[in-house]
Amino acid sequence: MGIVALVTDFGTSAYPGILKGVILAIHPAARIVDLTHAVPPYAVRQGAWLLYTAYRYFPAGTVFLAVVDPGVGSERQRLAVATRRYYFVGPDNGLLYPAASADGIKETVVLPRPPEASLTFEARDIFAPAAARLARGEPLSALGAPGKIKTRLLFYLEGREGEVVHVDAFGNIVTNLPPEPGARRYHLTAANLSLDLPFFETYAAAPPGKPFVITGSAGTLELSVREGSAVALLPLAPGTRVRLEGLP
Amino acid sequence: MGIVALVTDFGTSAYPGILKGVILAIHPAARIVDLTHAVPPYAVRQGAWLLYTAYRYFPAGTVFLAVVDPGVGSERQRLAVATRRYYFVGPDNGLLYPAASADGIKETVVLPRPPEASLTFEARDIFAPAAARLARGEPLSALGAPGKIKTRLLFYLEGREGEVVHVDAFGNIVTNLPPEPGARRYHLTAANLSLDLPFFETYAAAPPGKPFVITGSAGTLELSVREGSAVALLPLAPGTRVRLEGLP
Amino acid sequence: MGIVALVTDFGTSAYPGILKGVILAIHPAARIVDLTHAVPPYAVRQGAWLLYTAYRYFPAGTVFLAVVDPGVGSERQRLAVATRRYYFVGPDNGLLYPAASADGIKETVVLPRPPEASLTFEARDIFAPAAARLARGEPLSALGAPGKIKTRLLFYLEGREGEVVHVDAFGNIVTNLPPEPGARRYHLTAANLSLDLPFFETYAAAPPGKPFVITGSAGTLELSVREGSAVALLPLAPGTRVRLEGLP
Repeated sequence: MGIVALVTDFGTSAYPGILKGVILAIHPAARIVDLTHAVPPYAVRQGAWLLYTAYRYFPAGTVFLAVVDPGVGSERQRLAVATRRYYFVGPDNGLLYPAASADGIKETVVLPRPPEASLTFEARDIFAPAAARLARGEPLSALGAPGKIKTRLLFYLEGREGEVVHVDAFGNIVTNLPPEPGARRYHLTAANLSLDLPFFETYAAAPPGKPFVITGSAGTLELSVREGSAVALLPLAPGTRVRLEGLP
Repeated sequence: MGIVALVTDFGTSAYPGILKGVILAIHPAARIVDLTHAVPPYAVRQGAWLLYTAYRYFPAGTVFLAVVDPGVGSERQRLAVATRRYYFVGPDNGLLYPAASADGIKETVVLPRPPEASLTFEARDIFAPAAARLARGEPLSALGAPGKIKTRLLFYLEGREGEVVHVDAFGNIVTNLPPEPGARRYHLTAANLSLDLPFFETYAAAPPGKPFVITGSAGTLELSVREGSAVALLPLAPGTRVRLEGLP
Repeated sequence: MGIVALVTDFGTSAYPGILKGVILAIHPAARIVDLTHAVPPYAVRQGAWLLYTAYRYFPAGTVFLAVVDPGVGSERQRLAVATRRYYFVGPDNGLLYPAASADGIKETVVLPRPPEASLTFEARDIFAPAAARLARGEPLSALGAPGKIKTRLLFYLEGREGEVVHVDAFGNIVTNLPPEPGARRYHLTAANLSLDLPFFETYAAAPPGKPFVITGSAGTLELSVREGSAVALLPLAPGTRVRLEGLP
């Protein structure tokens, strides 16, 4: 199909535009989709969560070009991965692992580093060309030598304790904890917080101004405030361990 | 033509990217255009204004997928509307009404809510699929039962009194008031402001640092500061009633 | 090929979306690429630098529609330029010059100003239509009368003294100074700063929290902080003269 979906921490810069130029120069018929460039700078775990929750909505064959890469230019591996339905291209720092392993990894290659590639913009000089070549139909094996993902990023989940995986643009605090069927309230324990919060099925059902628990779009629990920002009231940054126990 | 234009308050998040995945999975040849994702969170009126001033520049047949939806998951209706030249898909909260009624509403259907749809992301599970089906040529009647728009959002306009409909990324304060031919100055009355402001036809003609009145790109009056931000000097939020009377 | 790449200071607004509607209405098969809309408002020099460093990654034939235009509606010229491999459309205020002259200017026309065009949004009413017509294959000569670029923006470079040309989304301070082969440190002189900074080839090699010098993706020297923001430590705004002298 020729779709290349971009996930980066490049924000509102010219860097995503340059990737698009590179891709179109190699594969003029590519269909390039901005999945997100709003991963916070260097936040590999949040990027991994966003890719993991979003990839499944794309057509089979989509090539995900994912770059959140504080180790750019270093010796960490550069990967292209074929899974059951998709391709993933990016650094071997955990970013690709949750999505790729969830879809089922079939084949992995290590991308070579041409000596003329920039040491600060491998997305432009290594990853985007690899994604473009996959999108135009080249086999994975043409891109590099067989290899393995080394960095297996896992989100913490032990019973009712998980982690804050993301804070979205609305200020919702997203966890990786599944809802408990029938729970009307949740007891939250995190950092030095310990409080009971009501559960609502929709934002519209909640009273304004007070934090509550809701099942978010990824099917996991989120802390929210109706037409407001939960993170402004509850200072829970991504990576924070969080316990949410259902109450009747 | 298969164009789907997106208008949301999703900001710089992964949510627009997920909508694109959903649309492409249903209609791989769709041409998806980000009209804007910078509607302030939950600001239905501003979203309605932006859609109203932008829709007319798109080719006939464009499907506008517009979601600014504090009532997501609630009982407010979910709509798909055919107008004289376009389609509009989104919640029945006023967002679609100014644009759709300006173009001339021909047919409206109410989209059903599948029980498995997320209560927090109907844009992904209901609106995007409907837009994709319209873009690939399905008739409106295939998407839902015949219905009507219930929420008829109107911008206030009574003689020379209107409202602030938007503050743009440059800090320009946009009103819905038409210019008065020949006016060289305007008397502004709004909130507790009462002052005379000069009118200039171009930004370049204005002196730096001082607010003035200009005819903006929607053909309505705006308060501006040359190479500066009007809203930083004049605290007029969207929704504020504003009177602008032309003076010779 | 029909590619139109957009460079503006329109930020996260509806204005780029409106340009896309205009382009698609004229040339429905156009492939529109957001190169960047994050040029700081009115920052012609930064826009010129971003266009200059990015254009070369796009396929031959790409039409660059570049609008950073504090003089919109004034008497400055409106240009469409054919270069050796590309087309550039935008205001004659220096924005197009570094890229167009680097690629080699072949032909320039001055776009007429239809009287009905908005005086505040010529990007919509003049530049976008011109770009769309070039993208669909019309000859440059059909768009206007032969002319010349009048504003020849040059970045300052005199030996080891250059200028800050951009501060990127990560806080990197980008200069137009080339690296000195073999330099292990650089002496920085700028504003009232005078200090020695180490040089690292990769971000990962640098210690956290301290500014250093690196060769950025444009091949010029940048001031950076590993997983941090250089501009937060060193207050060097775009346009500042900066001297970087290599030390062994």
